[in-house]
Amino acid sequence: MAVRVVGFDGDDTLWHSETRFHVTQGEFRELITRHNPDADPDTRLAETEMKNLAIYGYGVKSFTLSMLETAIELTKAQISATDLDVILGWGKRMLMEPTELLPGVEDTLRALGQRYDLLLITKGDLFDQESKLARSGLGDLFLGVEILSEKDVEMYHRIFQRRGIQPQDFVMVGNSLRSDVVPVVSLGGHAVHIPYEVTWQHEHVPEDQMPKEGWRRISSIKELPEILDAI
Amino acid sequence: MAVRVVGFDGDDTLWHSETRFHVTQGEFRELITRHNPDADPDTRLAETEMKNLAIYGYGVKSFTLSMLETAIELTKAQISATDLDVILGWGKRMLMEPTELLPGVEDTLRALGQRYDLLLITKGDLFDQESKLARSGLGDLFLGVEILSEKDVEMYHRIFQRRGIQPQDFVMVGNSLRSDVVPVVSLGGHAVHIPYEVTWQHEHVPEDQMPKEGWRRISSIKELPEILDAI
Repeated sequence: MAVRVVGFDGDDTLWHSETRFHVTQGEFRELITRHNPDADPDTRLAETEMKNLAIYGYGVKSFTLSMLETAIELTKAQISATDLDVILGWGKRMLMEPTELLPGVEDTLRALGQRYDLLLITKGDLFDQESKLARSGLGDLFLGVEILSEKDVEMYHRIFQRRGIQPQDFVMVGNSLRSDVVPVVSLGGHAVHIPYEVTWQHEHVPEDQMPKEGWRRISSIKELPEILDAI
Repeated sequence: MAVRVVGFDGDDTLWHSETRFHVTQGEFRELITRHNPDADPDTRLAETEMKNLAIYGYGVKSFTLSMLETAIELTKAQISATDLDVILGWGKRMLMEPTELLPGVEDTLRALGQRYDLLLITKGDLFDQESKLARSGLGDLFLGVEILSEKDVEMYHRIFQRRGIQPQDFVMVGNSLRSDVVPVVSLGGHAVHIPYEVTWQHEHVPEDQMPKEGWRRISSIKELPEILDAI
Protein backbone atom coordinates (compact mmCIF):
# COMPACT_ATOMS: atom_id res chain seq x y z
CA MET A 1 0.00 0.00 0.00
CA ALA A 2 1.94 2.99 -1.29
CA VAL A 3 0.83 6.49 -2.15
CA ARG A 4 0.45 6.96 -5.89
CA VAL A 5 -1.46 10.22 -6.27
CA VAL A 6 -1.01 13.46 -4.32
CA GLY A 7 -3.70 16.15 -4.50
CA PHE A 8 -2.89 19.75 -3.67
CA ASP A 9 -5.17 22.55 -2.67
CA GLY A 10 -4.16 25.85 -4.32
CA ASP A 11 -5.21 28.90 -2.29
CA ASP A 12 -3.10 29.28 0.86
CA THR A 13 -1.45 25.91 0.29
CA LEU A 14 0.60 26.61 -2.83
CA TRP A 15 0.08 30.37 -3.12
CA HIS A 16 -1.08 33.22 -0.91
CA SER A 17 -4.78 34.00 -1.19
CA GLU A 18 -6.44 34.78 2.13
CA THR A 19 -3.89 37.55 2.64
CA ARG A 20 -5.28 39.49 -0.32
CA PHE A 21 -8.78 39.19 1.12
CA HIS A 22 -7.42 40.25 4.49
CA VAL A 23 -5.73 43.37 3.12
CA THR A 24 -8.78 44.41 1.12
CA GLN A 25 -11.03 43.81 4.10
CA GLY A 26 -8.87 46.21 6.12
CA GLU A 27 -9.38 48.90 3.48
CA PHE A 28 -13.10 48.14 3.43
CA ARG A 29 -13.30 48.53 7.21
CA GLU A 30 -11.61 51.90 7.00
CA LEU A 31 -13.87 53.12 4.19
CA ILE A 32 -17.09 52.11 5.97
CA THR A 33 -16.02 53.40 9.37
CA ARG A 34 -15.39 56.80 7.78
CA HIS A 35 -19.08 56.89 6.79
CA ASN A 36 -20.47 55.18 9.85
CA PRO A 37 -18.16 55.01 12.89
CA ASP A 38 -20.56 52.73 14.78
CA ALA A 39 -20.70 50.06 12.10
CA ASP A 40 -19.09 46.64 12.45
CA PRO A 41 -18.04 46.10 8.82
CA ASP A 42 -16.22 42.80 9.39
CA THR A 43 -19.12 41.00 11.03
CA ARG A 44 -21.62 42.39 8.57
CA LEU A 45 -19.51 41.52 5.54
CA ALA A 46 -19.03 37.96 6.82
CA GLU A 47 -22.80 37.64 7.27
CA THR A 48 -23.48 38.98 3.77
CA GLU A 49 -20.92 36.60 2.28
CA MET A 50 -22.51 33.60 4.01
CA LYS A 51 -25.99 34.67 2.96
CA ASN A 52 -24.83 35.05 -0.66
CA LEU A 53 -22.79 31.84 -0.82
CA ALA A 54 -25.70 29.83 -2.25
CA ILE A 55 -26.21 32.47 -4.97
CA TYR A 56 -22.68 33.60 -5.80
CA GLY A 57 -20.40 30.73 -4.71
CA TYR A 58 -16.78 31.38 -3.68
CA GLY A 59 -14.22 33.73 -5.14
CA VAL A 60 -13.13 37.32 -5.62
CA LYS A 61 -16.08 38.36 -7.80
CA SER A 62 -18.50 37.09 -5.14
CA PHE A 63 -16.49 38.86 -2.44
CA THR A 64 -16.59 42.13 -4.41
CA LEU A 65 -20.35 41.93 -4.91
CA SER A 66 -20.82 41.23 -1.19
CA MET A 67 -18.60 44.18 -0.26
CA LEU A 68 -20.71 46.48 -2.44
CA GLU A 69 -23.94 45.19 -0.91
CA THR A 70 -22.60 45.56 2.64
CA ALA A 71 -21.30 49.08 1.96
CA ILE A 72 -24.69 50.22 0.65
CA GLU A 73 -26.46 48.62 3.59
CA LEU A 74 -24.15 49.95 6.34
CA THR A 75 -24.26 53.52 4.99
CA LYS A 76 -28.04 53.43 4.48
CA ALA A 77 -27.28 54.01 0.78
CA GLN A 78 -25.52 57.31 1.57
CA ILE A 79 -22.19 56.10 0.17
CA SER A 80 -21.16 57.79 -3.08
CA ALA A 81 -20.79 56.04 -6.42
CA THR A 82 -17.16 57.19 -6.36
CA ASP A 83 -16.53 55.19 -3.19
CA LEU A 84 -18.32 52.16 -4.61
CA ASP A 85 -16.11 52.46 -7.68
CA VAL A 86 -13.12 52.20 -5.36
CA ILE A 87 -14.50 48.87 -4.12
CA LEU A 88 -14.88 47.67 -7.72
CA GLY A 89 -11.22 48.60 -8.21
CA TRP A 90 -10.16 46.50 -5.19
CA GLY A 91 -11.83 43.48 -6.78
CA LYS A 92 -9.95 43.99 -10.04
CA ARG A 93 -6.68 44.51 -8.22
CA MET A 94 -7.15 41.20 -6.35
CA LEU A 95 -7.88 39.38 -9.60
CA MET A 96 -4.82 40.79 -11.33
CA GLU A 97 -2.28 40.41 -8.53
CA PRO A 98 0.66 38.14 -9.35
CA THR A 99 0.41 34.62 -7.91
CA GLU A 100 2.79 34.60 -4.97
CA LEU A 101 4.00 31.09 -4.15
CA LEU A 102 4.55 29.99 -0.55
CA PRO A 103 8.14 29.11 0.46
CA GLY A 104 9.42 25.75 -0.81
CA VAL A 105 6.44 25.08 -3.07
CA GLU A 106 8.17 24.94 -6.42
CA ASP A 107 11.11 22.77 -5.32
CA THR A 108 8.89 20.37 -3.39
CA LEU A 109 6.46 19.92 -6.27
CA ARG A 110 9.29 19.33 -8.74
CA ALA A 111 10.76 16.67 -6.47
CA LEU A 112 7.42 14.95 -5.79
CA GLY A 113 6.46 15.06 -9.48
CA GLN A 114 9.23 12.51 -10.14
CA ARG A 115 7.60 9.94 -7.87
CA TYR A 116 3.86 10.66 -7.73
CA ASP A 117 1.02 11.81 -9.96
CA LEU A 118 0.19 15.33 -8.82
CA LEU A 119 -3.31 16.82 -9.03
CA LEU A 120 -4.41 20.35 -8.28
CA ILE A 121 -7.79 20.25 -6.55
CA THR A 122 -9.07 23.73 -5.78
CA LYS A 123 -12.34 25.39 -4.96
CA GLY A 124 -13.64 28.72 -6.16
CA ASP A 125 -14.12 30.74 -9.26
CA LEU A 126 -13.12 28.80 -12.40
CA PHE A 127 -11.72 31.76 -14.30
CA ASP A 128 -9.79 33.18 -11.36
CA GLN A 129 -8.30 29.81 -10.40
CA GLU A 130 -7.19 29.04 -13.96
CA SER A 131 -5.71 32.48 -14.26
CA LYS A 132 -3.81 32.08 -10.98
CA LEU A 133 -2.49 28.67 -12.00
CA ALA A 134 -1.30 30.06 -15.34
CA ARG A 135 0.51 32.91 -13.59
CA SER A 136 2.01 30.53 -10.97
CA GLY A 137 4.26 28.80 -13.50
CA LEU A 138 3.32 25.45 -11.89
CA GLY A 139 0.84 24.35 -14.57
CA ASP A 140 3.11 21.76 -16.20
CA LEU A 141 3.73 19.94 -12.91
CA PHE A 142 0.15 18.73 -12.55
CA LEU A 143 -1.18 15.69 -14.33
CA GLY A 144 -4.67 17.08 -13.85
CA VAL A 145 -6.52 20.09 -12.51
CA GLU A 146 -9.90 19.96 -10.80
CA ILE A 147 -11.63 23.23 -10.02
CA LEU A 148 -14.72 22.57 -7.94
CA SER A 149 -17.54 24.70 -6.63
CA GLU A 150 -17.31 22.88 -3.27
CA LYS A 151 -14.82 20.32 -1.93
CA ASP A 152 -16.95 17.74 -0.15
CA VAL A 153 -17.19 13.94 0.09
CA GLU A 154 -19.26 13.65 -3.07
CA MET A 155 -16.88 15.75 -5.16
CA TYR A 156 -13.80 13.77 -4.02
CA HIS A 157 -15.65 10.52 -4.63
CA ARG A 158 -16.37 11.61 -8.20
CA ILE A 159 -12.71 12.48 -8.79
CA PHE A 160 -11.62 9.08 -7.47
CA GLN A 161 -14.10 7.34 -9.76
CA ARG A 162 -13.34 9.35 -12.86
CA ARG A 163 -9.58 9.02 -12.45
CA GLY A 164 -9.57 5.43 -11.22
CA ILE A 165 -7.96 6.32 -7.90
CA GLN A 166 -8.12 4.00 -4.88
CA PRO A 167 -8.61 6.21 -1.80
CA GLN A 168 -5.83 4.40 0.09
CA ASP A 169 -3.37 5.37 -2.66
CA PHE A 170 -4.30 9.05 -2.39
CA VAL A 171 -3.03 11.86 -0.16
CA MET A 172 -4.65 15.30 -0.10
CA VAL A 173 -2.51 18.24 1.00
CA GLY A 174 -4.10 21.51 2.04
CA ASN A 175 -4.65 24.23 4.60
CA SER A 176 -8.35 23.59 5.23
CA LEU A 177 -9.50 20.92 7.68
CA ARG A 178 -13.03 21.22 6.31
CA SER A 179 -12.24 21.01 2.58
CA ASP A 180 -8.93 19.15 2.33
CA VAL A 181 -8.76 16.81 5.31
CA VAL A 182 -12.16 15.70 6.66
CA PRO A 183 -13.85 14.57 3.40
CA VAL A 184 -10.77 12.73 2.12
CA VAL A 185 -10.14 10.86 5.39
CA SER A 186 -13.81 9.89 5.61
CA LEU A 187 -13.50 8.25 2.17
CA GLY A 188 -10.51 6.20 3.32
CA GLY A 189 -7.80 8.42 1.88
CA HIS A 190 -4.93 10.19 3.62
CA ALA A 191 -4.53 13.89 4.27
CA VAL A 192 -1.78 16.27 5.31
CA HIS A 193 -2.80 19.55 6.90
CA ILE A 194 -0.52 22.57 6.44
CA PRO A 195 -2.08 25.45 8.38
CA TYR A 196 -1.87 28.90 6.80
CA GLU A 197 -1.23 32.07 8.77
CA VAL A 198 -4.86 33.20 8.35
CA THR A 199 -7.84 30.83 8.26
CA TRP A 200 -11.21 31.86 6.95
CA GLN A 201 -13.71 31.19 9.74
CA HIS A 202 -15.90 29.23 7.32
CA GLU A 203 -13.16 26.60 6.84
CA HIS A 204 -12.57 25.95 10.53
CA VAL A 205 -13.32 22.61 12.22
CA PRO A 206 -12.94 22.21 16.01
CA GLU A 207 -10.10 19.81 16.85
CA ASP A 208 -12.36 17.48 18.85
CA GLN A 209 -14.51 16.92 15.77
CA MET A 210 -11.56 15.83 13.67
CA PRO A 211 -10.99 12.19 12.73
CA LYS A 212 -8.49 10.45 15.02
CA GLU A 213 -6.50 8.82 12.22
CA GLY A 214 -5.65 9.14 8.56
CA TRP A 215 -4.15 12.61 8.66
CA ARG A 216 -1.04 14.46 9.81
CA ARG A 217 -0.18 18.08 10.40
CA ILE A 218 3.04 19.71 9.26
CA SER A 219 4.12 23.33 9.34
CA SER A 220 5.66 23.63 5.88
CA ILE A 221 5.32 21.94 2.51
CA LYS A 222 9.06 21.25 2.74
CA GLU A 223 8.32 18.45 5.23
CA LEU A 224 6.00 16.73 2.77
CA PRO A 225 8.39 14.33 0.96
CA GLU A 226 9.42 12.74 4.25
CA ILE A 227 5.81 12.39 5.40
CA LEU A 228 4.76 10.75 2.13
CA ASP A 229 7.59 8.21 2.46
CA ALA A 230 6.20 7.22 5.83
CA ILE A 231 2.60 6.63 4.71
CA MET B 1 -17.47 5.39 -38.59
CA ALA B 2 -20.42 6.01 -36.29
CA VAL B 3 -21.06 8.73 -33.76
CA ARG B 4 -20.44 7.53 -30.22
CA VAL B 5 -20.35 10.69 -28.09
CA VAL B 6 -22.58 13.77 -28.35
CA GLY B 7 -21.55 16.99 -26.61
CA PHE B 8 -24.13 19.65 -25.78
CA ASP B 9 -23.67 23.29 -25.05
CA GLY B 10 -25.92 24.46 -22.20
CA ASP B 11 -26.78 28.17 -22.43
CA ASP B 12 -29.22 28.89 -25.29
CA THR B 13 -28.90 25.32 -26.56
CA LEU B 14 -30.59 23.38 -23.75
CA TRP B 15 -31.95 26.26 -21.69
CA HIS B 16 -32.65 29.97 -22.17
CA SER B 17 -29.80 32.23 -21.08
CA GLU B 18 -29.19 35.17 -23.41
CA THR B 19 -32.82 36.20 -22.88
CA ARG B 20 -32.15 36.94 -19.21
CA PHE B 21 -29.18 39.11 -20.17
CA HIS B 22 -31.35 40.79 -22.80
CA VAL B 23 -34.15 41.62 -20.37
CA THR B 24 -31.75 42.95 -17.73
CA GLN B 25 -29.93 45.01 -20.33
CA GLY B 26 -33.23 46.66 -21.26
CA GLU B 27 -33.75 47.65 -17.63
CA PHE B 28 -30.17 48.88 -17.46
CA ARG B 29 -30.68 51.04 -20.57
CA GLU B 30 -33.77 52.60 -19.02
CA LEU B 31 -32.06 53.31 -15.70
CA ILE B 32 -29.03 54.96 -17.31
CA THR B 33 -31.04 56.98 -19.82
CA ARG B 34 -33.03 58.42 -16.92
CA HIS B 35 -29.78 59.84 -15.53
CA ASN B 36 -28.15 60.71 -18.83
CA PRO B 37 -30.48 60.85 -21.88
CA ASP B 38 -27.54 61.24 -24.28
CA ALA B 39 -25.74 58.09 -23.15
CA ASP B 40 -25.48 54.93 -25.26
CA PRO B 41 -25.64 52.34 -22.47
CA ASP B 42 -25.65 49.28 -24.76
CA THR B 43 -22.48 50.15 -26.65
CA ARG B 44 -20.70 51.27 -23.52
CA LEU B 45 -21.69 48.16 -21.55
CA ALA B 46 -20.51 45.90 -24.38
CA GLU B 47 -17.17 47.73 -24.43
CA THR B 48 -16.78 47.42 -20.66
CA GLU B 49 -17.62 43.71 -20.79
CA MET B 50 -15.01 43.08 -23.49
CA LYS B 51 -12.39 45.11 -21.63
CA ASN B 52 -13.10 43.14 -18.43
CA LEU B 53 -13.26 39.68 -20.05
CA ALA B 54 -9.58 38.99 -19.36
CA ILE B 55 -10.07 39.90 -15.68
CA TYR B 56 -13.56 38.61 -14.89
CA GLY B 57 -14.26 35.88 -17.48
CA TYR B 58 -17.83 35.06 -18.55
CA GLY B 59 -21.00 34.85 -16.51
CA VAL B 60 -23.63 36.74 -14.57
CA LYS B 61 -21.33 37.96 -11.79
CA SER B 62 -18.96 39.43 -14.39
CA PHE B 63 -21.92 41.00 -16.19
CA THR B 64 -23.17 42.55 -12.94
CA LEU B 65 -19.77 44.02 -12.09
CA SER B 66 -19.51 45.47 -15.61
CA MET B 67 -23.01 46.98 -15.35
CA LEU B 68 -22.03 48.70 -12.09
CA GLU B 69 -18.82 50.05 -13.60
CA THR B 70 -20.62 51.31 -16.72
CA ALA B 71 -23.39 52.93 -14.65
CA ILE B 72 -20.88 54.84 -12.53
CA GLU B 73 -18.95 55.91 -15.61
CA LEU B 74 -21.95 57.03 -17.70
CA THR B 75 -23.44 59.07 -14.85
CA LYS B 76 -20.07 60.62 -13.94
CA ALA B 77 -20.53 58.97 -10.53
CA GLN B 78 -23.76 60.89 -9.93
CA ILE B 79 -25.85 57.70 -9.71
CA SER B 80 -27.13 56.94 -6.20
CA ALA B 81 -26.16 53.91 -4.14
CA THR B 82 -29.84 52.99 -4.14
CA ASP B 83 -29.82 52.69 -7.93
CA LEU B 84 -26.60 50.68 -7.86
CA ASP B 85 -28.25 48.39 -5.31
CA VAL B 86 -31.00 47.81 -7.87
CA ILE B 87 -28.34 46.60 -10.34
CA LEU B 88 -26.94 44.25 -7.67
CA GLY B 89 -30.48 42.90 -7.31
CA TRP B 90 -30.76 42.24 -11.05
CA GLY B 91 -27.64 40.09 -10.87
CA LYS B 92 -29.06 38.03 -8.02
CA ARG B 93 -32.38 37.64 -9.80
CA MET B 94 -30.60 36.33 -12.91
CA LEU B 95 -28.65 33.82 -10.82
CA MET B 96 -31.74 32.57 -9.05
CA GLU B 97 -34.11 32.34 -11.99
CA PRO B 98 -35.42 28.84 -12.71
CA THR B 99 -33.69 27.02 -15.57
CA GLU B 100 -36.12 27.21 -18.46
CA LEU B 101 -35.53 24.40 -20.97
CA LEU B 102 -35.95 24.97 -24.70
CA PRO B 103 -38.76 23.03 -26.43
CA GLY B 104 -38.04 19.34 -27.05
CA VAL B 105 -34.85 19.25 -25.00
CA GLU B 106 -35.80 16.75 -22.35
CA ASP B 107 -37.44 14.21 -24.70
CA THR B 108 -34.61 14.43 -27.21
CA LEU B 109 -31.91 13.96 -24.59
CA ARG B 110 -33.72 10.98 -23.06
CA ALA B 111 -33.99 9.35 -26.47
CA LEU B 112 -30.36 10.04 -27.43
CA GLY B 113 -29.11 8.87 -24.05
CA GLN B 114 -30.14 5.33 -25.00
CA ARG B 115 -27.78 5.28 -27.98
CA TYR B 116 -24.93 7.71 -27.29
CA ASP B 117 -22.75 8.94 -24.45
CA LEU B 118 -23.91 12.48 -23.69
CA LEU B 119 -21.59 15.19 -22.39
CA LEU B 120 -22.49 18.69 -21.26
CA ILE B 121 -19.75 21.09 -22.39
CA THR B 122 -20.45 24.64 -21.29
CA LYS B 123 -18.57 27.84 -20.80
CA GLY B 124 -18.94 30.41 -18.07
CA ASP B 125 -19.10 30.70 -14.34
CA LEU B 126 -18.58 27.33 -12.62
CA PHE B 127 -20.99 27.93 -9.76
CA ASP B 128 -23.75 29.40 -11.92
CA GLN B 129 -23.49 26.62 -14.52
CA GLU B 130 -23.60 23.85 -11.90
CA SER B 131 -26.52 25.52 -10.23
CA LYS B 132 -28.40 25.78 -13.52
CA LEU B 133 -27.71 22.17 -14.38
CA ALA B 134 -28.97 21.06 -10.97
CA ARG B 135 -32.16 23.07 -11.41
CA SER B 136 -32.64 21.80 -15.00
CA GLY B 137 -33.37 18.24 -13.87
CA LEU B 138 -31.14 16.98 -16.70
CA GLY B 139 -28.11 16.15 -14.54
CA ASP B 140 -28.57 12.37 -14.63
CA LEU B 141 -28.67 12.25 -18.42
CA PHE B 142 -25.05 13.28 -18.84
CA LEU B 143 -22.15 10.85 -18.54
CA GLY B 144 -19.89 13.82 -17.87
CA VAL B 145 -19.97 17.57 -17.40
CA GLU B 146 -17.21 19.93 -18.53
CA ILE B 147 -17.44 23.56 -17.48
CA LEU B 148 -14.73 25.57 -19.21
CA SER B 149 -13.53 29.14 -19.02
CA GLU B 150 -13.27 29.21 -22.83
CA LYS B 151 -14.34 26.73 -25.52
CA ASP B 152 -11.49 26.70 -28.02
CA VAL B 153 -9.46 24.12 -29.96
CA GLU B 154 -7.12 23.48 -27.06
CA MET B 155 -9.92 22.85 -24.56
CA TYR B 156 -11.75 20.42 -26.87
CA HIS B 157 -8.47 18.66 -27.61
CA ARG B 158 -7.90 18.17 -23.88
CA ILE B 159 -11.40 16.74 -23.42
CA PHE B 160 -10.85 14.30 -26.30
CA GLN B 161 -7.55 13.18 -24.80
CA ARG B 162 -8.78 12.84 -21.25
CA ARG B 163 -11.91 10.94 -22.22
CA GLY B 164 -10.32 8.86 -24.99
CA ILE B 165 -12.61 10.27 -27.67
CA GLN B 166 -11.73 10.03 -31.39
CA PRO B 167 -12.82 13.33 -32.99
CA GLN B 168 -14.59 11.51 -35.85
CA ASP B 169 -16.81 9.73 -33.28
CA PHE B 170 -17.85 13.03 -31.69
CA VAL B 171 -20.62 15.51 -32.50
CA MET B 172 -20.90 18.86 -30.74
CA VAL B 173 -24.34 20.50 -30.61
CA GLY B 174 -24.71 24.18 -29.80
CA ASN B 175 -25.90 27.64 -30.70
CA SER B 176 -22.48 29.28 -31.08
CA LEU B 177 -20.53 29.00 -34.33
CA ARG B 178 -17.46 30.32 -32.54
CA SER B 179 -17.52 28.06 -29.47
CA ASP B 180 -19.43 24.95 -30.53
CA VAL B 181 -18.84 24.52 -34.27
CA VAL B 182 -15.54 25.98 -35.53
CA PRO B 183 -13.08 24.48 -33.00
CA VAL B 184 -14.67 21.00 -33.12
CA VAL B 185 -14.75 20.84 -36.92
CA SER B 186 -11.15 22.03 -37.11
CA LEU B 187 -10.15 19.08 -34.89
CA GLY B 188 -11.88 16.62 -37.25
CA GLY B 189 -15.11 16.28 -35.28
CA HIS B 190 -18.68 16.96 -36.35
CA ALA B 191 -20.92 19.80 -35.26
CA VAL B 192 -24.59 20.68 -35.38
CA HIS B 193 -25.53 24.33 -35.13
CA ILE B 194 -28.92 25.23 -33.61
CA PRO B 195 -29.24 29.04 -33.78
CA TYR B 196 -30.90 30.73 -30.82
CA GLU B 197 -33.26 33.69 -31.15
CA VAL B 198 -30.63 36.11 -29.80
CA THR B 199 -26.88 35.79 -30.45
CA TRP B 200 -24.31 37.60 -28.41
CA GLN B 201 -22.19 39.62 -30.85
CA HIS B 202 -19.03 38.13 -29.36
CA GLU B 203 -20.04 34.61 -30.50
CA HIS B 204 -20.75 35.55 -34.11
CA VAL B 205 -18.70 34.24 -37.05
CA PRO B 206 -19.35 35.50 -40.62
CA GLU B 207 -20.74 32.70 -42.80
CA ASP B 208 -17.93 33.03 -45.37
CA GLN B 209 -15.36 32.27 -42.66
CA MET B 210 -17.10 29.02 -41.68
CA PRO B 211 -15.68 25.62 -42.62
CA LYS B 212 -17.30 24.18 -45.76
CA GLU B 213 -17.83 20.70 -44.32
CA GLY B 214 -18.21 18.84 -41.07
CA TRP B 215 -21.21 20.69 -39.72
CA ARG B 216 -24.95 21.08 -40.28
CA ARG B 217 -27.53 23.59 -39.20
CA ILE B 218 -30.96 22.66 -37.85
CA SER B 219 -33.67 24.85 -36.40
CA SER B 220 -34.69 22.71 -33.42
CA ILE B 221 -33.10 20.07 -31.21
CA LYS B 222 -36.02 17.83 -32.19
CA GLU B 223 -34.34 17.28 -35.58
CA LEU B 224 -31.16 16.02 -33.93
CA PRO B 225 -31.80 12.23 -33.77
CA GLU B 226 -32.37 12.06 -37.51
CA ILE B 227 -29.24 14.11 -38.24
CA LEU B 228 -27.10 11.91 -36.01
CA ASP B 229 -28.33 8.81 -37.84
CA ALA B 230 -27.12 10.33 -41.08
CA ILE B 231 -23.57 11.13 -39.90
